[in-house]
Amino acid sequence: MSSPRGNALIGQSGGPTCVINQSLVGLVEACVASEAVGQVYGALHGIAGILDENLIDLGRESAATLEAVAATPCAALRSVRKKPTREECEQVLAVLRAHDVRYFFYIGGNDSAETAHILNEIAVAENYDVRLFHVPKTIDNDLPVTDHCPGFGSAAKFVAQAIMGDNQDNRSLPGIKIDVIMGRHAGWLTAASRLARQFEDDGPHLIYVPERDFSLDEFVGDVERMFSRHGRCLVAASEGIHGPDGAPVASTGEVDSHGNVQLSGTGALGDLLATTIKDRLGAGLRVRADTFGYLQRSFAGVVSEVDAAEARAVGRHAVALATGDDVPHGSVILVREGDGAEYFCRTDVTALENVAQQTRVLDEAHLAGSNDVSEVFLEYVTPLVGNMPRPGRLSDFPVAKRLV
Amino acid sequence: MSSPRGNALIGQSGGPTCVINQSLVGLVEACVASEAVGQVYGALHGIAGILDENLIDLGRESAATLEAVAATPCAALRSVRKKPTREECEQVLAVLRAHDVRYFFYIGGNDSAETAHILNEIAVAENYDVRLFHVPKTIDNDLPVTDHCPGFGSAAKFVAQAIMGDNQDNRSLPGIKIDVIMGRHAGWLTAASRLARQFEDDGPHLIYVPERDFSLDEFVGDVERMFSRHGRCLVAASEGIHGPDGAPVASTGEVDSHGNVQLSGTGALGDLLATTIKDRLGAGLRVRADTFGYLQRSFAGVVSEVDAAEARAVGRHAVALATGDDVPHGSVILVREGDGAEYFCRTDVTALENVAQQTRVLDEAHLAGSNDVSEVFLEYVTPLVGNMPRPGRLSDFPVAKRLV
Repeated sequence: MSSPRGNALIGQSGGPTCVINQSLVGLVEACVASEAVGQVYGALHGIAGILDENLIDLGRESAATLEAVAATPCAALRSVRKKPTREECEQVLAVLRAHDVRYFFYIGGNDSAETAHILNEIAVAENYDVRLFHVPKTIDNDLPVTDHCPGFGSAAKFVAQAIMGDNQDNRSLPGIKIDVIMGRHAGWLTAASRLARQFEDDGPHLIYVPERDFSLDEFVGDVERMFSRHGRCLVAASEGIHGPDGAPVASTGEVDSHGNVQLSGTGALGDLLATTIKDRLGAGLRVRADTFGYLQRSFAGVVSEVDAAEARAVGRHAVALATGDDVPHGSVILVREGDGAEYFCRTDVTALENVAQQTRVLDEAHLAGSNDVSEVFLEYVTPLVGNMPRPGRLSDFPVAKRLV
Repeated sequence: MSSPRGNALIGQSGGPTCVINQSLVGLVEACVASEAVGQVYGALHGIAGILDENLIDLGRESAATLEAVAATPCAALRSVRKKPTREECEQVLAVLRAHDVRYFFYIGGNDSAETAHILNEIAVAENYDVRLFHVPKTIDNDLPVTDHCPGFGSAAKFVAQAIMGDNQDNRSLPGIKIDVIMGRHAGWLTAASRLARQFEDDGPHLIYVPERDFSLDEFVGDVERMFSRHGRCLVAASEGIHGPDGAPVASTGEVDSHGNVQLSGTGALGDLLATTIKDRLGAGLRVRADTFGYLQRSFAGVVSEVDAAEARAVGRHAVALATGDDVPHGSVILVREGDGAEYFCRTDVTALENVAQQTRVLDEAHLAGSNDVSEVFLEYVTPLVGNMPRPGRLSDFPVAKRLV
């Protein structure tokens, strides 16, 4: 089962992350360095670009350009949300053959792993020798098998710093503040808001994730309780929270070609939650909602160094696997070794079908009650995010009153 | 007109900024170092804290705590949105007398300058010798006289980095994206999105500020034109955009005690603009809206170094003025000296009535057409924001097609 000689093709798919180009550059570097790989091509807009034969030559890019691209958020190859049909997958194989592509790397989430899996089945059936690897990325952190997903740490850092600042804002001008965070099925990113809690009375005071059924009545009760305790309340809620029937609390009804409901890019959920609080707890209350939106996956300049390094490493490892003798296809994973302060992850691989269309949500051990996360989760997420600002606070030494 | 001996009192008011505590710490440091000043007090929640005699002793804080506080976003003394009545201002004076406060520093926007101005009139009428200074802060940058306001540079940096990332996002997954940015009367912060434009085809492709009347019809036409040119369109719009009649395009109808309409903390404007585009240009278009919200004024970890240093400097300068012999009251300003790469601002002072209730909007020279800003604005804002990420881009060397 020695590796073939031929060209490599790289594509990026799905929602961007801030380190998705680290994986791209890791792949390009390792392909250029490999004797088995000839030309290194990129497909513009993922599968859509392959179908249109819209390829670029990544091997001609300078090292300086590649480093600048690696540090730039979102898909430098441009992305796509497209689930190819069986027929389109066969057409993709035809393009691979035409360009003598023997190595195909698809950077994306579980939808991309599925696409790679289908392509692999067709290649085997057609007896075309091509090495197919899925390189994981997603801010949602919802892929199975891997300890965590490249892209998550940086998005988690953005969310944690945003909530940290908003907690100070909420303390400055007390009221009820609701922040809506990305995550349609899994609450990993919303849970990361927990990192903002430094002093005992810091927000987020309530954390709602899709892993727990959401009830507006309980929500109002939770907010009322926190408000009477702290004189304010900061809420972190996943965009995908839903009732016991599974229906999202708010959605626009729009669906993409993978069947995913559109939840981002609208302030509907935040406004609904804020209005509910005003209606039920009193119109005089200061209630505001923000929906963090695309900033979570694209903000330029806030990156977890660990995340960036791991994203680069999974790209390099995919090439090492593909050009090796042991594994002709698969999805790269991160395996956590050591624990606590001794955090380290090594790269490994799992079968494509283990990742395709699978979703990993928060475990019971990560949650605490109906509206918080546990110390287990905090230990899990802390090393992925890296250095965080450390807010200071005045001691509030009282001055004796003289007029009362 | 030699300065009195007595205690100092500091308050923070209005919406937070990321460097408002730099000004606080600048004031505390300089007060502690001054021989004229006895105790250094802080009022919790601004004027509201003074009325309740809710004061703390800032002179007892350690240098380490003060430095940590200086680097923390939002009002460490906690803030307030309150316009005191004449009667309440007289009560404030009574509290100042009771605590022998001879130096009062109010960090805030034009509403705070107005409060300081009224307090000064009462103090003069009552023949109570107190030095009253307004220390400017606002992310909106809408105070007159000063070249710019402490707090603006850091918020502008956040907006520019957000739009820079969102431009990459929009390039990855093309569509129409609308970002709503703070600024009810003045478009300074929205205009700062211009800093994200690096390559010729980068967004923001359209910039709408309250200084120009907004028309939904023209907006739809502008978007259509940009979309056919670039295959995508990124829009930066101020929350305060309004039609020729002055009515906001979207508002919740809520009004604060200064008479300001609530525009933030809701996704209404973004959703309205996105829905309009979908309705008028086709439901099949990918249209999304994000409202940046409170992150712009509170996000932990994104600060302009220039802004932080200037915010500290205006605090120190207020104490130097107050304890000097020349100016018994006023508002601290920044005066730009040199130009271009040689940017430097010195601190100076103007009369309280020059700042109270005044609003400075973008000049005609800062604008370009109905939906962009000029090079003059770009030169103005660049040094205030400091270092920015520099996105990289692939060269897109084409690969010859083989199947067509």
